[in-house]
Amino acid sequence: ARSIDLAVIPGDGIGPEVVDQGLKVLTAVLPGDVKLETTTYDLGAKRWHATGETLPDAELERLKAHDAILLGAIGDPTVPSGVLERGLLLKLRFVFDHYVNLRPSKLFPNTPTPLAGRPDIDFVVVREGTEGLYVGNGGSVRTGTPAEIANEVSVNTAYGVERVVRDAFERAAARPRKKLTLVHKTNVLVHAGHLWQRTVDRVAQEYPQVSTDYLHVDAATIFLVTQPERFDVIVTDNLFGDILTDLAAAVTGGIGLAASGNINPTGAFPSMFEPVHGSAPDIAGTGKADPTATVLSVALLLRHLGHEAEAARVEEAVTADLAERDAAAPRSTDAIGDALAARVSG
Amino acid sequence: ARSIDLAVIPGDGIGPEVVDQGLKVLTAVLPGDVKLETTTYDLGAKRWHATGETLPDAELERLKAHDAILLGAIGDPTVPSGVLERGLLLKLRFVFDHYVNLRPSKLFPNTPTPLAGRPDIDFVVVREGTEGLYVGNGGSVRTGTPAEIANEVSVNTAYGVERVVRDAFERAAARPRKKLTLVHKTNVLVHAGHLWQRTVDRVAQEYPQVSTDYLHVDAATIFLVTQPERFDVIVTDNLFGDILTDLAAAVTGGIGLAASGNINPTGAFPSMFEPVHGSAPDIAGTGKADPTATVLSVALLLRHLGHEAEAARVEEAVTADLAERDAAAPRSTDAIGDALAARVSG
Ligand SMILES: CC(C)[C@H](C(=O)O)[C@@H](O)C(=O)O
Ligand SMILES: CC(C)[C@H](C(=O)O)[C@@H](O)C(=O)O
Repeated sequence: ARSIDLAVIPGDGIGPEVVDQGLKVLTAVLPGDVKLETTTYDLGAKRWHATGETLPDAELERLKAHDAILLGAIGDPTVPSGVLERGLLLKLRFVFDHYVNLRPSKLFPNTPTPLAGRPDIDFVVVREGTEGLYVGNGGSVRTGTPAEIANEVSVNTAYGVERVVRDAFERAAARPRKKLTLVHKTNVLVHAGHLWQRTVDRVAQEYPQVSTDYLHVDAATIFLVTQPERFDVIVTDNLFGDILTDLAAAVTGGIGLAASGNINPTGAFPSMFEPVHGSAPDIAGTGKADPTATVLSVALLLRHLGHEAEAARVEEAVTADLAERDAAAPRSTDAIGDALAARVSG
Repeated sequence: ARSIDLAVIPGDGIGPEVVDQGLKVLTAVLPGDVKLETTTYDLGAKRWHATGETLPDAELERLKAHDAILLGAIGDPTVPSGVLERGLLLKLRFVFDHYVNLRPSKLFPNTPTPLAGRPDIDFVVVREGTEGLYVGNGGSVRTGTPAEIANEVSVNTAYGVERVVRDAFERAAARPRKKLTLVHKTNVLVHAGHLWQRTVDRVAQEYPQVSTDYLHVDAATIFLVTQPERFDVIVTDNLFGDILTDLAAAVTGGIGLAASGNINPTGAFPSMFEPVHGSAPDIAGTGKADPTATVLSVALLLRHLGHEAEAARVEEAVTADLAERDAAAPRSTDAIGDALAARVSG
């Protein structure tokens, strides 16, 4: 497209700071003839404190009209746990049917990893984004009494599983190693697990060039630290994907670098791009936040909107910037953003 | 007790091999006046193939009469996923009300870890063992059709949460650092999560000497690889505990060393001790299995039955053995068992 109509949700904590850098790099990388229009949405803790609103219907309607959404971070210790997450972030993912939650994991050169031996890490997690334990299908009775029962229901459908599994096979087929690993817990969650396993087995027949295997989620965490190079594409449910991608971020240099896309591949609703990290209220305003995860999320956004060359330029800039980083001389959020913007426009 | 009436379930794969070594060490460490009686139960894949039985009621009745159970490993690729796990292993945990699933994690000297910098690791996970997503409360409709729905229900009760939280506080209070970390996902699983958080907050008032904190499960996996020394006692639900303890095992030298106790603190039913690892059918019969996790599980068993001095002797023997291990000269399952047995009797 020769124009991008972008919704921006800076959110809480370090969200606004990192989003500023993401926009800086986005502006710098776009060719002169691509018009970027941004609309900022004031959503998050401040708004909730002021009005009690998390995501009013009118805002949701306005958001629908954009080409894509760039989100910083949502969540604040002054708001009861779950209110903003479920009322805002997850609501966006669900209403806009972001069924592919795409989270690449790559260990860049010169980037610190807690793992000895610096294994080669380059895989992508395709996390289901609209089902599982995230559906909000839970409740409690006799709450606060010694007889309380609190249930949470994981909902999984053939419809929901198949579409994300197909997306994962497509991605695996397009990668050099062509390997897909299903992660679940089929030996305990037999109903949901077998639905996932049956779906992968069936779709696999259409992709003879893709090799598949299976790991229980507990075993997958072991391989993520002992043999992360074994992974190429991982497909998994919403909660397991949440857990695995934080761990994956940790072994590839930290959540300061982990990007994500909440993608609706049909295009029926805008996709949303955000760093995997949270709002980190402890460092908000200190200039210590690393905007790289947001910048890499901007690359995913560009790719999603068809600007492949620009996406690649952003990723190359990040790679080059990381290669020259000096842990003894940390730069501010702003300085990193400036450096990346300079590289992509250079 | 001056006698131990032990049920032994060798199980599948490497189970029988590692259990043999556990019994060898147990026999060697017990003082002459403590009579050890063992009864072996033929349960697992072979029995299921022969008779279709996983855990017949009559066996369950007989098992109840023992002081404790030593289990090797359950699970085999020739049996549909979930059949043995749910019909045997989890059935034992549930029927014998093993609500404390105790899993210590310690990085022993000279033991390889995938983590750079060899952090100091010494914590224990108190995993709830009788609730959550493990209750088997799931099902599917229109199974195998494009309209299939498969649900899994996590069931959490004030009764079940409080008793395991109390146990965790007791353990934290008895440790030098006196620190308890609740791990959950309260921002998404708000009903179950808030029950856990409220329970920890309430019980904490009775333990002013114990400091508490909270981590989301995704963040906890990050800290397990970047800052594992921050953990002392972790209390968490059944599934999160499953995931975290495999990861914890990986960073402390592998599941070849991770012990566990499925404990019923009331004594109403026998507690069960088993290595965290599975049946590893790929190395069964090769003599490559490390029996150390089983031997450390025997130490937990001894402690549970009041033989503290013997438990400590077993742990010291393992520490000493690990200190002398030479990765270039691996020993067989049997040889490690012999060495440990010699140390505890020496
Ligand atoms: C904030 C939270 C609801 C969210 C999630 O659990 O999906 C976050 O952890 C993530 O991974 O994007
Ligand atoms: C085999 C499986 C059912 C079991 C579990 O999930 O609890 C295992 O992973 C464990 O941790 O003991």
